[in-house]
Amino acid sequence: MKGKTSDSKLKIIPLGGLEEIGMNITAFEYEDSIVVVDCGLAFPDDDMLGIDLVIPDITYLKQNIKKVKGFVITHGHEDHIGALPYVLREINVPVYATKLTVGLIEHKLEERDMLRSTKRKTVKFGQSINLGKFRIEFIKTNHSIQDAAALAIYSPAGIVVHTGDFKVDYTPVFGDAIDLQRFAEIGKKGVLALMCDSTNAERPGFTMSEKTVGRAFDTIFSEHRSQRLIIATFASNVDRVQQIIDSAAKYGRKVVVEGRSMVNIISIAQELGYLKVPDNTLIDINMMKNYPDEQMVLITTGSQGESMAALSRMAADIHKKVTIKPGDLIVFSSHPIPGNEKAVSNVINELYEKGAEVIFQDVHVSGHACQEDIKLIYSLVKPKYSIPVHGEYRHLIAQKNIAESLGIDKDNIFVIKTGDVLELNQDGAKVTGKVETGEVMVDGLGVGDVGNIVLRDRQRLSEDGILIVVMTLEKHGNQLLAGPDIVSRGFVYVRESEDLMEEARLVVEDALDECLRRNISDWGKLKSSIKDSLGSFVWKRTQRNPMILPIIMEA
Amino acid sequence: MKGKTSDSKLKIIPLGGLEEIGMNITAFEYEDSIVVVDCGLAFPDDDMLGIDLVIPDITYLKQNIKKVKGFVITHGHEDHIGALPYVLREINVPVYATKLTVGLIEHKLEERDMLRSTKRKTVKFGQSINLGKFRIEFIKTNHSIQDAAALAIYSPAGIVVHTGDFKVDYTPVFGDAIDLQRFAEIGKKGVLALMCDSTNAERPGFTMSEKTVGRAFDTIFSEHRSQRLIIATFASNVDRVQQIIDSAAKYGRKVVVEGRSMVNIISIAQELGYLKVPDNTLIDINMMKNYPDEQMVLITTGSQGESMAALSRMAADIHKKVTIKPGDLIVFSSHPIPGNEKAVSNVINELYEKGAEVIFQDVHVSGHACQEDIKLIYSLVKPKYSIPVHGEYRHLIAQKNIAESLGIDKDNIFVIKTGDVLELNQDGAKVTGKVETGEVMVDGLGVGDVGNIVLRDRQRLSEDGILIVVMTLEKHGNQLLAGPDIVSRGFVYVRESEDLMEEARLVVEDALDECLRRNISDWGKLKSSIKDSLGSFVWKRTQRNPMILPIIMEA
Repeated sequence: MKGKTSDSKLKIIPLGGLEEIGMNITAFEYEDSIVVVDCGLAFPDDDMLGIDLVIPDITYLKQNIKKVKGFVITHGHEDHIGALPYVLREINVPVYATKLTVGLIEHKLEERDMLRSTKRKTVKFGQSINLGKFRIEFIKTNHSIQDAAALAIYSPAGIVVHTGDFKVDYTPVFGDAIDLQRFAEIGKKGVLALMCDSTNAERPGFTMSEKTVGRAFDTIFSEHRSQRLIIATFASNVDRVQQIIDSAAKYGRKVVVEGRSMVNIISIAQELGYLKVPDNTLIDINMMKNYPDEQMVLITTGSQGESMAALSRMAADIHKKVTIKPGDLIVFSSHPIPGNEKAVSNVINELYEKGAEVIFQDVHVSGHACQEDIKLIYSLVKPKYSIPVHGEYRHLIAQKNIAESLGIDKDNIFVIKTGDVLELNQDGAKVTGKVETGEVMVDGLGVGDVGNIVLRDRQRLSEDGILIVVMTLEKHGNQLLAGPDIVSRGFVYVRESEDLMEEARLVVEDALDECLRRNISDWGKLKSSIKDSLGSFVWKRTQRNPMILPIIMEA
Repeated sequence: MKGKTSDSKLKIIPLGGLEEIGMNITAFEYEDSIVVVDCGLAFPDDDMLGIDLVIPDITYLKQNIKKVKGFVITHGHEDHIGALPYVLREINVPVYATKLTVGLIEHKLEERDMLRSTKRKTVKFGQSINLGKFRIEFIKTNHSIQDAAALAIYSPAGIVVHTGDFKVDYTPVFGDAIDLQRFAEIGKKGVLALMCDSTNAERPGFTMSEKTVGRAFDTIFSEHRSQRLIIATFASNVDRVQQIIDSAAKYGRKVVVEGRSMVNIISIAQELGYLKVPDNTLIDINMMKNYPDEQMVLITTGSQGESMAALSRMAADIHKKVTIKPGDLIVFSSHPIPGNEKAVSNVINELYEKGAEVIFQDVHVSGHACQEDIKLIYSLVKPKYSIPVHGEYRHLIAQKNIAESLGIDKDNIFVIKTGDVLELNQDGAKVTGKVETGEVMVDGLGVGDVGNIVLRDRQRLSEDGILIVVMTLEKHGNQLLAGPDIVSRGFVYVRESEDLMEEARLVVEDALDECLRRNISDWGKLKSSIKDSLGSFVWKRTQRNPMILPIIMEA
């Protein structure tokens, strides 16, 4: 397709994933066709109090529903598939992915009884699918989950190569190494744009092979033969689990798997042939008591210090079936994701306090390409335009710097934002507009019913609590029938602050008297007078700023 | 004193600092004398919603007030001096420290008008003070703040060496290197116990000299001559500030200092002679506009991403006097403290988004001793007992492992906890009891008036908000005069959930009718019936668990 031009332009529109971590979803649009790559969720920021998860606003897709040909999913991590069950309810289009990814998606859909209503198709590496004016080819890569794919997106305006999350692993645990030859071959044809994973773009060097972790496990197993082993890692890293199982088999240990997501993924992976477990190796957690410590290894969730995960519950001594005891060796086969450092450290401290030994270094490798790996992909693909994806803004900038160092024209590198419409073909590329995007917050069963006002209230309630002032007034008059009473929650320990609360009541009474005396019957005014008086009294006395909520009843 | 024994034992009682980061305070008790080392605050954990800071419970000192001879402070960081203004209000005893430390303490006392009521004494390195049965010698060390001291605590039961927070810096920026000779000399006399800083006990090797950061600054200044420089670092690291000022003078830049704590500490340090500023170097922030970018360097707070600090406000574009623009170079001369990684990363992203360049690596060294430095101190002091201090539990364990590797008997290493009473002399050492300790939470002006119930309420309010159900009942009867009304905050966006709220009201009405019909006039029962019905309705419909607060008025 080298040099072939087209009047129409390809539009690349990230609907999520570029100004936040997670929530990856990008629309590719050419004339009457839209293909959407990935459909992930994000975990809530610290200031999204009480929110369970965040999904993308897909208004743009709904407005163009007739064009949307389907979702193409690069791999099975939550930040790439997690929003599908929510989004498919609003736009029911087919989903295309590799075998394990489809398996993980199906598990999600099944939980929500959406399996029958969703079309999905398993695609093999090297295979292409036609979706309207697009053809999408799945290219084998490596990542911290199996069956990860890069995509070659063929459009009349040119080819876009999207790496998805990837690393270069020459010696993967399962299946083939990344198909570098195919990247080169497509590069030879002439690639319009490369969208490459930026997560590790700040890290120099190469990312180590997953196999090196297997060797680390072997060393640990051989040096700690008399201890019970508990290894925490990411549920979705099936290769990691495979290597633990292999070491267990080699050193004569039984394996117990603990943690809901770990159990789920292992069973899916085993069923689909991605995990090979020797006979009589996996045992049920309830059988553990039949084996001595030195014959046991537990594989568990909780490597990020998540408060409800299995390892955290063991460390806090609230796990029903596993009690940490002196002599146990706990291995963190993970690295804390930014933001989780303190939680992980707390779990490590608790484990030490129970007399356990803890190993938390050098038993993990990243699933993302480092600087030299990124340079390799650029050098094989040789794109005209570079569009860094996946990562915080700082990581996109780091990739931009890499691309520049490789000789890509500064003006051909686009660090775009969620909602930007990047139009491109062989003649040029530029951001031509912006579409509606956003974060939809999921809280319990509610999708989008918690907005900024509710969050602001939660924030204020969390800081200084609430003072509720109730009173009953005579209907059509201004006679006080009951109250004013003040009830507080999250403000002070009332039993030790009775004087303060009584004084506060008097302040409200004065404000109320004053209003009634001046015949103010506008309740809005009455409420704001109470708010002001009580608020300034409380601030003066405590330097706190609780929410003040006057409620007037009419009887 | 080698070999000299005593019938009485020395008691070492940590009243804080061993199960949490910060809040360092340790009582040393011998017969009728108590000396307290340090009096620090801690910053609130993530689950202490709305809390400003945490100070130690000093019940034990109040109970033994007649014995307490004074506070001996090792250095001027908040986790060693921050609780003084609160604690001195309850036990007014003299404070002993080195010159800069006294200066920083005086600033705190002055702010609270406590200067006249507090006795304090400046001690020089090498000097000793007699406090009851104790003699305390101040020994020069190095740390990320000047004038840090280790203490040799002489008691009839033997000598305890307490390092405070320290590093070994052979080439400090200001003043002398750590007095290793004195450590050795005291070691030769025979040391009963060593209490050594564990913060970096997990890190192999040696800690680099502060001077290496000066060289890094010089390189940055020389390679970025045309850009405005903004350097964020810790306010209390005066040596760091000195090196920035030196580079500024060398490369012809004016210096602006921004951020309240930075301005305060620099003025104290300058006044006391710990910071040398060449004439016409420091300028006021309002004068900045008179100088071109390449002649300016700003030194600012905010290196930890603290939301209200100067750099964070600049990054968020809400700083009144500094606007980040393309071409600015921002240097983080710091490393994120565990728990701050995400906040720091957010600030870095915001700075990049404004087109600035950011340097955040290799412009910082730690203020704490690494493994080889710790081994050096043990080898000079050669204590009988080892009591690791300063650090999370994992760090104490790491130091324990170091002590063991140096040949100290496992039974002579005491990883103790806050409140433990460790009794020791030449004949033996053991934990013999536990005293009352705890965390006192400070919220606004309130000290200790927020307890676990209030925190639990804040937690619940922050997650799902509150539903307030109000009604007015006839006095001595069960006639409903007004309501029931439901008011919510932090639950759902009410305008879009009118149906839900109306249904909820009907649920309450039904529950109420049922109670009134059954002549239930016990308001406790009435309230819990409303709570149950409304709670289960809300859970079924939203899977949320807001606080439900029924308020009944009587008219």
